[in-house]
Amino acid sequence: MRFISQTSSDGVTERLFNLGETPGVLWTPEGADGARPLILMGHGGGQHKKAPGIVARAHHFVVEGGFAVAAVDAPNHGDRPKTEGFARIAAELRAGMVAGEDTTAQFVAMHTFLAEQAVPEWQAVLTALQELDFVGTGRVGYWGMSMGCGLGIPFLAAEPRIHAAVLGLLGVHGLADTAARVTVPVRFLLQWDDDMVPRAQGLELFDALASADKTLHANPGKHGEIPEFETGSSLRFFTRHLG
Amino acid sequence: MRFISQTSSDGVTERLFNLGETPGVLWTPEGADGARPLILMGHGGGQHKKAPGIVARAHHFVVEGGFAVAAVDAPNHGDRPKTEGFARIAAELRAGMVAGEDTTAQFVAMHTFLAEQAVPEWQAVLTALQELDFVGTGRVGYWGMSMGCGLGIPFLAAEPRIHAAVLGLLGVHGLADTAARVTVPVRFLLQWDDDMVPRAQGLELFDALASADKTLHANPGKHGEIPEFETGSSLRFFTRHLG
Repeated sequence: MRFISQTSSDGVTERLFNLGETPGVLWTPEGADGARPLILMGHGGGQHKKAPGIVARAHHFVVEGGFAVAAVDAPNHGDRPKTEGFARIAAELRAGMVAGEDTTAQFVAMHTFLAEQAVPEWQAVLTALQELDFVGTGRVGYWGMSMGCGLGIPFLAAEPRIHAAVLGLLGVHGLADTAARVTVPVRFLLQWDDDMVPRAQGLELFDALASADKTLHANPGKHGEIPEFETGSSLRFFTRHLG
Repeated sequence: MRFISQTSSDGVTERLFNLGETPGVLWTPEGADGARPLILMGHGGGQHKKAPGIVARAHHFVVEGGFAVAAVDAPNHGDRPKTEGFARIAAELRAGMVAGEDTTAQFVAMHTFLAEQAVPEWQAVLTALQELDFVGTGRVGYWGMSMGCGLGIPFLAAEPRIHAAVLGLLGVHGLADTAARVTVPVRFLLQWDDDMVPRAQGLELFDALASADKTLHANPGKHGEIPEFETGSSLRFFTRHLG
C-alpha cells in the first residue's frame, strides 16, 4: 500500500493510496493512534471513491464513531482506465436506458463483470489496511448502496472478515444465490419510490439474505433520496456490531 | 382525572388513574416538575395498559428520554367490563381462529367496534393529561402495535394534537381510507415472518399512510418478536419529533 497524500481538516485525516492498480482513500480521526474498527464503503455506478455521498458519510462515521473508513474506485470507475469489455457493457446499458427498456439484465451483467475483479481487490485492500497500526485487525463493516450493494454482496459472501453490512438500493436479479450465503447482520435501505429498482425486487433481495439479524429500513423517495437521518442510524448499527 | 395510587421505583413514578370509566396509568420521571413531551401507548388485543411490553417500553421512554408516558385499558380490555357486543365479536374471532380460517374480517370488525369508543376516550384522556402541570401542552406522540395500531390510526386521523407515531404489526384491511388521513411522521414496524399479519398486507398499510415522513422497519421474526433494539430506535424517533 503506497500512500500518495495526507491532509487533515475538521478532525479527519484523509490519505490517498494505491494498492497495485487500485486507487483508494482512507479516513481516520486526526491523530488516530492504535487499532479501531474499520468500515469499507462501496460507491454507486458511475461514481467514485470520493463521491459526495461517500465523503459525507465517511466523515460522520469517523468523527462521531471514531472508525477508520476506506473507499476505493471500483474497476473502470473514478481514476481508473476503462477496459473494452466494460465499455461494451456500459454502452448496452446506456442504449437500454435511452430506449426506455427494462435494463435489469444489463445492470446484472455489469455488476457480475465488475465483481469478478472488485472482490479480490477489496480483499487485498482489507489485508493491507489491517497491517496499519492505526487500523489493526479489529472488526470490519461494509457499506454499499446500488452498485456498492451489487459488488458488496459477492464480497460479503466471499470474505469472512466482514462482521456487519449496510446494503440497499438494489433488486434481487442475479443475486439471490449469493445473498443466501450472506449471514452477518445487515441493515438494508430501500427507497419506497425508487425510480431505478422496482419495490418488489428490492424487498426480494432483503428476503434472500440469509442473515438472522437483518433489518429493512424503507423511506419514501427516489433512488438517490435516502433521508439524512439514516446516516446516524447506520452509525449506531455499526457501533452496535463493530464497537 | 382521579388518581388512585402513586408509587416510584428505579427513577419512574407510576400513577394509576380513572377518567370517567377509563382506567389508565401515567409514568413520569421521579420528581418530574414542569412540562414535558408526552407519549400515549396503545396495547395489543387481549392485553392491557400494564402489559409487560408496554411497561418495559414506557420505562425506557421515561428514563432515557424524560418523557411522560400514558396507557389506558382499551374498551373491553384489562380492568374494564366486557359488553355483549364485544363478547359476540370476540367469540366470532375465536371461532375463526380455532377453525384455522382467515380472520382478517373479524379483526377489522373488532377494531372498528372498539375504535368508536376508544378514539373519544383517548381524546378526553389527552385533554386531562395536558392539564397536569408536570405534563403540560407540549408535543405528543403515539405508540401502538397490532390492535394498538388498529385503534391508533383512527385516533391519529381524528386528533390534531398528535405530532408523531410509532405504529405496526397490522395489515391494511379496513384501514386504507383512514390511513390516508394520517399525515404526521410515522415509524412503522413490520415483522417479516408475522404469523398473524400477511407481509403484503402490512406493506400495504405502510404504503397507505399519507405521511411524507414515514419509515418502515422490517425485522425477521413472528408477530410478537420485535427486536429489543427497536425500542431505542423508537425513543430516538420520538426525541427527534417531540423533543
